[in-house]
Amino acid sequence: MYYPEPIERLIEHLTRLPGIGRKTATRLTFFLLHANNTYIADLSESIAQLKEKIRLCSICFNITDIEPCQYCRDEHRGKGIICVVEEPSHIMMIESSNPRTYRYHVLHGVINPIEGIGPEDIRIPELKERIEREGVTELIIATNPTIEGNTTAHYIAELTKSLHVRITRIASGIPVGGDLVYTDPLTIKSAIENRRSLSDDSQPLS
Amino acid sequence: MYYPEPIERLIEHLTRLPGIGRKTATRLTFFLLHANNTYIADLSESIAQLKEKIRLCSICFNITDIEPCQYCRDEHRGKGIICVVEEPSHIMMIESSNPRTYRYHVLHGVINPIEGIGPEDIRIPELKERIEREGVTELIIATNPTIEGNTTAHYIAELTKSLHVRITRIASGIPVGGDLVYTDPLTIKSAIENRRSLSDDSQPLS
Repeated sequence: MYYPEPIERLIEHLTRLPGIGRKTATRLTFFLLHANNTYIADLSESIAQLKEKIRLCSICFNITDIEPCQYCRDEHRGKGIICVVEEPSHIMMIESSNPRTYRYHVLHGVINPIEGIGPEDIRIPELKERIEREGVTELIIATNPTIEGNTTAHYIAELTKSLHVRITRIASGIPVGGDLVYTDPLTIKSAIENRRSLSDDSQPLS
Repeated sequence: MYYPEPIERLIEHLTRLPGIGRKTATRLTFFLLHANNTYIADLSESIAQLKEKIRLCSICFNITDIEPCQYCRDEHRGKGIICVVEEPSHIMMIESSNPRTYRYHVLHGVINPIEGIGPEDIRIPELKERIEREGVTELIIATNPTIEGNTTAHYIAELTKSLHVRITRIASGIPVGGDLVYTDPLTIKSAIENRRSLSDDSQPLS
């Protein structure tokens, strides 16, 4: 026995969303069944229009509804430093701690030989072009500290060697407020490698 | 700093769904941003059409897209017994253990004086009418074993006293496969009150 067809259909569609099982999908569907019509129309429309209105910024490849995007058009940000991230959502994370500081470059992925993703499949050629065109002085590579993120960082560093741009990598270590007892060995290793001197002006030791 | 407007708008709408916070809404939105257009159109349309196509059955008040609903039109089900439930979704739960056995009556709520919900606000008048009209012999009251569900069950029993219909209440006790150690005192109390004789034909003792 199943629910009436319109209900089953919505449950089925919702189940395809990440992290939504049949039970949650059913709960959401019954919520919508009791929701007011304006909300339902708004929700339906904003889903339908999402992709229509969203483009990639021609400069940094961030997702945007304006061209160039809000970060690229922001005069407050210095021209010299570009922060390289894997995904558009990572920009928000950096903005939350360093608002209006950097411009960005979104790779839309990382190099992953196992999945057949090479440098040409993500926005690395465009990054190189941009460094040459814009006279960038520093690239902060903020890909995740995973094998693929590190590989990508090293690839970019190698690729841009001749361009005389400073390449830096975000530190990986114990999260602020964390505890060594709950930290894995690789993170501790990285935290020690990235240790800073407290006696001089806080530069990492090699 | 926020995401572009179409993204923010969808995140905001999704956040109004039960159990969906801003983080989950953001994850869903980015999933949709990468989803194929057919799926997006299907999802949007099935949300928009959900309430248009769904009606309440004129007999049992179950949600349905046909009139009368699939349960009321099923000749396989006896006419004598009606199972009374709080919500349409509860029908599915009963069907999963007792398929094609009973007809139903959906109250769409329970009596709840604190929230100002009286017998006239849920489908109790219609239930009484239906008992008289259809010559019902037994009402199985399957509202939840909560204070409100029990109150509603007793109210219905009182209301239909003169109609010579047998009123029964689903048992509440320890779930099958459960453990007394993890069972609350009220449930154990109820399980003992609802105990059955193993020596005769399994009728509950009073």
